[in-house]
Amino acid sequence: MTLNVGVIGVGMIGQDHIRRLTHVLSGARVSAVTDVDLDRAKGIAAGLPAAKALQTGQELIDDPEVDAVVVASWGPTHEEYVLASIAAGKQVFCEKPLATTREACERILDAEVAAGKRLVMVGFMRRYDDGYRAMKQVIDSGEIGAPLMFHSAHRNPSVPPHYVSDMIINDTCVHDVDVARFLLGTEIVGARVVTPRKNSLASDHLTDPVLFLFDMADGALVDVEASINIQYAYDIRGEVVGERGTVALAETNPVTVKSNGRYGGRVPEDWRERFIRAYDTEFQEWVNAASSGNSTGPSSWDGYAATVVCDAGLAAMQSGERVEVSLREQPDLYRVTAGEGPTGTD
Amino acid sequence: MTLNVGVIGVGMIGQDHIRRLTHVLSGARVSAVTDVDLDRAKGIAAGLPAAKALQTGQELIDDPEVDAVVVASWGPTHEEYVLASIAAGKQVFCEKPLATTREACERILDAEVAAGKRLVMVGFMRRYDDGYRAMKQVIDSGEIGAPLMFHSAHRNPSVPPHYVSDMIINDTCVHDVDVARFLLGTEIVGARVVTPRKNSLASDHLTDPVLFLFDMADGALVDVEASINIQYAYDIRGEVVGERGTVALAETNPVTVKSNGRYGGRVPEDWRERFIRAYDTEFQEWVNAASSGNSTGPSSWDGYAATVVCDAGLAAMQSGERVEVSLREQPDLYRVTAGEGPTGTD
Amino acid sequence: MTLNVGVIGVGMIGQDHIRRLTHVLSGARVSAVTDVDLDRAKGIAAGLPAAKALQTGQELIDDPEVDAVVVASWGPTHEEYVLASIAAGKQVFCEKPLATTREACERILDAEVAAGKRLVMVGFMRRYDDGYRAMKQVIDSGEIGAPLMFHSAHRNPSVPPHYVSDMIINDTCVHDVDVARFLLGTEIVGARVVTPRKNSLASDHLTDPVLFLFDMADGALVDVEASINIQYAYDIRGEVVGERGTVALAETNPVTVKSNGRYGGRVPEDWRERFIRAYDTEFQEWVNAASSGNSTGPSSWDGYAATVVCDAGLAAMQSGERVEVSLREQPDLYRVTAGEGPTGTD
Amino acid sequence: MTLNVGVIGVGMIGQDHIRRLTHVLSGARVSAVTDVDLDRAKGIAAGLPAAKALQTGQELIDDPEVDAVVVASWGPTHEEYVLASIAAGKQVFCEKPLATTREACERILDAEVAAGKRLVMVGFMRRYDDGYRAMKQVIDSGEIGAPLMFHSAHRNPSVPPHYVSDMIINDTCVHDVDVARFLLGTEIVGARVVTPRKNSLASDHLTDPVLFLFDMADGALVDVEASINIQYAYDIRGEVVGERGTVALAETNPVTVKSNGRYGGRVPEDWRERFIRAYDTEFQEWVNAASSGNSTGPSSWDGYAATVVCDAGLAAMQSGERVEVSLREQPDLYRVTAGEGPTGTD
Repeated sequence: MTLNVGVIGVGMIGQDHIRRLTHVLSGARVSAVTDVDLDRAKGIAAGLPAAKALQTGQELIDDPEVDAVVVASWGPTHEEYVLASIAAGKQVFCEKPLATTREACERILDAEVAAGKRLVMVGFMRRYDDGYRAMKQVIDSGEIGAPLMFHSAHRNPSVPPHYVSDMIINDTCVHDVDVARFLLGTEIVGARVVTPRKNSLASDHLTDPVLFLFDMADGALVDVEASINIQYAYDIRGEVVGERGTVALAETNPVTVKSNGRYGGRVPEDWRERFIRAYDTEFQEWVNAASSGNSTGPSSWDGYAATVVCDAGLAAMQSGERVEVSLREQPDLYRVTAGEGPTGTD
Repeated sequence: MTLNVGVIGVGMIGQDHIRRLTHVLSGARVSAVTDVDLDRAKGIAAGLPAAKALQTGQELIDDPEVDAVVVASWGPTHEEYVLASIAAGKQVFCEKPLATTREACERILDAEVAAGKRLVMVGFMRRYDDGYRAMKQVIDSGEIGAPLMFHSAHRNPSVPPHYVSDMIINDTCVHDVDVARFLLGTEIVGARVVTPRKNSLASDHLTDPVLFLFDMADGALVDVEASINIQYAYDIRGEVVGERGTVALAETNPVTVKSNGRYGGRVPEDWRERFIRAYDTEFQEWVNAASSGNSTGPSSWDGYAATVVCDAGLAAMQSGERVEVSLREQPDLYRVTAGEGPTGTD
Repeated sequence: MTLNVGVIGVGMIGQDHIRRLTHVLSGARVSAVTDVDLDRAKGIAAGLPAAKALQTGQELIDDPEVDAVVVASWGPTHEEYVLASIAAGKQVFCEKPLATTREACERILDAEVAAGKRLVMVGFMRRYDDGYRAMKQVIDSGEIGAPLMFHSAHRNPSVPPHYVSDMIINDTCVHDVDVARFLLGTEIVGARVVTPRKNSLASDHLTDPVLFLFDMADGALVDVEASINIQYAYDIRGEVVGERGTVALAETNPVTVKSNGRYGGRVPEDWRERFIRAYDTEFQEWVNAASSGNSTGPSSWDGYAATVVCDAGLAAMQSGERVEVSLREQPDLYRVTAGEGPTGTD
Repeated sequence: MTLNVGVIGVGMIGQDHIRRLTHVLSGARVSAVTDVDLDRAKGIAAGLPAAKALQTGQELIDDPEVDAVVVASWGPTHEEYVLASIAAGKQVFCEKPLATTREACERILDAEVAAGKRLVMVGFMRRYDDGYRAMKQVIDSGEIGAPLMFHSAHRNPSVPPHYVSDMIINDTCVHDVDVARFLLGTEIVGARVVTPRKNSLASDHLTDPVLFLFDMADGALVDVEASINIQYAYDIRGEVVGERGTVALAETNPVTVKSNGRYGGRVPEDWRERFIRAYDTEFQEWVNAASSGNSTGPSSWDGYAATVVCDAGLAAMQSGERVEVSLREQPDLYRVTAGEGPTGTD
């Protein structure tokens, strides 16, 4: 009954998933790990109750004691490991991005379609956040009418030194791209980026903030403010404007304090604090589905769409013009029933 | 000590100002009224303690028992009455718009500059709203750092039958245009309009909603959602995003109710409810200034800038392209000290 | 049409009412002032457009140029001036308390009943606050069902040196006493006071905080937290618990700020900030009613009830026991139609 | 590494804990169950991966495949099973109440003290709620100064038919009793109950609502509103008033909806929705501690104090008088370091 999980990549995010699989979730254990730094993999394995360190991702994927695979390695390696997992017929959880190029994503789609069943889940954890789930529920209930606009704001207090300019689209806004598709239930067909004057607290090489606009296939409009050096907190805001009402993320603090002339509450410090429960829920749902041989959550198609939209966003940021987004025809494998969004979460 | 006010135009808005001057404010009384419908003017005068009905606006402006003028007539007549008031050396409160064309506004600027003193106040009441005033105070305090973006939303539950498509810029967003200049303290230099798919509850001839974007001279970016058939309420939202924090309008309801599984409060029904106090404050400050021979509040320059920006907004809505906004050089008369915005409120 | 108002007592509160009548409200002017310190009265009169300083309250009340009287003198003098105003048949606004003893209040009731019409309004300004008015509206709408409890909190950041222990009942909780009667629409029949350990920031001679409990005639229960050295702000909280819902005062700040890891807003600094609009509304409604020869607002009966309840509260604070509150039979003059509370505000 | 848990009592609450141990938490499995209805126990065992049904609680406690015990049977049986677990030297999680009489609780204290180590955790789940934990953190930080009062409200939409009058103290307010001790860090020394008029929506035999007041050893005062037929939702409110500030539970809804003239959010439907995560956290912490041979959370002492205070509350409700609460001297076993409250949660 326990799902044996092999983890490829034991850096910060991989280690966090190992902690989660070992100490938080039900029904899974880490049976094997690997990493480009084999010594690190061995050290991690040694600290786990029943895990071995293997030489390569391929070896791990093929291991009979690995029922399902987590890919948490460097982005450019994702394609290889996801394709190998599909080839092995094993469920694979792949951290975003699914792959770094449109072509790589398409090769994954081809392989999965050829396999005839969904095997891949992409780590867009916001779909598992209580707030976004409640937003979707309100939209689907019809209470606010058909959605016309989605205002999103993605604010980081600061970014690490290795953060380069393109990452504001590829690493930051990619979450807003996916969650817009999830909430609004349609594809993105065009992208624009408007850049205000720069935050003087940002490093010289960065563009910060940006307003990333995209058009949905049904004409709804999304605007995403990305501010990556806003100091005060890690703050994720969102409001969907419908024909007769709106729904917005509430503040997340559980208490209100009154002191020194003010009332108020904390805003999360970072993404770990803000989304810790979404990660737990995401993984538990994946473990539950994988244990029973099923797939769930954001699919290869969602990963593909996100990569294509971000490519368009980067082109739009460089040109200052609107850039069309064109996806290949969606295979039946990824089609979902009305009202569930591009990929349902059930 | 009592300011004798003459009111030109006694339609709905003119009557509301007469009520305010007569029953709410201190230090003023209505001494004369006129209207294109003279019988209506006579009827209104008859109901007031000490007012006469005059044949024309010019006659009213020239009347020795009129110390100061309120122009609440049809927009295209504003230029004539404002110019006549300037010629008569009398303080004039002009409902927006100052005038309907850039050229007409420039004639007013020329006349006022020639007169050598400010005589005109334009009715942008949001500058007198507690919320916007508190936002400006927070911005000026430096607590959130330099402003980079301003997200505004202007939502009407519905619009009357005579509302035509251009009015979403000229009558609705014009308030956001002025308040953006007030809050951010710089001029607008470019305009763009993006139109999502239409609200199915809007009349056939309307564009609804729109996202009106404008660039400020210092590079700050403003996005205004205008939704004019959103049903649920009259809802005015705004958030200024600074380099290290943000400030936003709070909900305005004085109580929170818990019933039927929900907690919550009312959102105003219409602009009267939302801005009734701002109108009172605006007029009281004008009466106080005019009584002591001074001017205050939004100036002819502010009225001129709003008209020019809305022209650009309309062109942008038609073309789908960014349209440059260019203002004439600002006369010294309208120059204000740093930190007060285009026109201070003191 | 302008109401000539005579003001007895030109200390801090009297001067504030003079400012209000002169510069804020419509339809009134101060025509005469007097004070125990006659020089002070003369100084104030000299600064007003058309006011004379008179030697005594009686002289002021009798002056033909005084249409209506404001009593803002020292509490123990209220009875005399209110009785004289009734005798003169003039409307009188009396700051709380109506009088300092039950017997004095009863003499006022007797005089007013004998006069056959209401002439007295007592300055319980909370009844004019937007928040409490909205609470009453929700209660009267039936949305939350019949009220069963009212939780009130009255928090002062600190109190001045002359504040003595009894004042926590007589000067602080007296407002909660009146507003409970207003909101719940019945009389208070019993009082209890429970005292937690003392706030170490309070002066030695004070009891702070207290929990003042009272029972209403219909069995509803009220608990009032009075904290008079709570430092953080002047904070007035209230929640009425009904059979199927609740209504509570919301925060009053018009904006929300995000900075330094927190979101939040200001809480008022003092009672002036918190209730400035309630005072304006209260006085304007009194001026409007007095100008047309009518009375409005909290009556002598309300002033009497407040004094009797506070007496019981003091006895309860000393004894630690529940103390019965017994009012005389209510004269018809003060009877109001169902649903309006002890004295309606219309 | 997996903790084998035996569950005594497989009614609604027992089944919910079994679900939690089997499908939600990490590091535990249900290895044995028993119930007064043996067939029900067999049915439950059959649906679990590796559990057997045993004839009696004693048999289960003695079973070598049971590492730790959950007592979820009928309250009057708790004493027997807890004592047997202590005798067997096994960690035991006992649903509240620890035992139904003061004497029974004292026998458990005696047994545990004799055993020389803590073996019992009592199921006061509120200590594991994000909101209460954040409240405690704010109190302990000193930001609001020393706590003087705690206003608590416990509101049920309705109660089941078997609910009798005493349960408003024993089953409802018992949670507020425990959480007051947790937040304020001292014992309760006196109890009073004030009863407003009855909610007409309550059954004839019930007292509803009540205001339960208790005094803490350090003089802080607690007032608990218990409303058990309030219809609108399951609403748990709390505010601690300190010497210089306050901290209160915020609303828990993750989104805000605007529709039909209102903004607002959901209030939980029932205790399952409100405290589901607190239950998960509580059990995971118990499993973690028990797996490593340690104890954690609310102790026998906390269960004892709660029972004694509720006895006093019932006496106070009957007499209308203040009833003293006296606890035996606290054994060293239950003493905690300053600042952690009666029993720390670490």
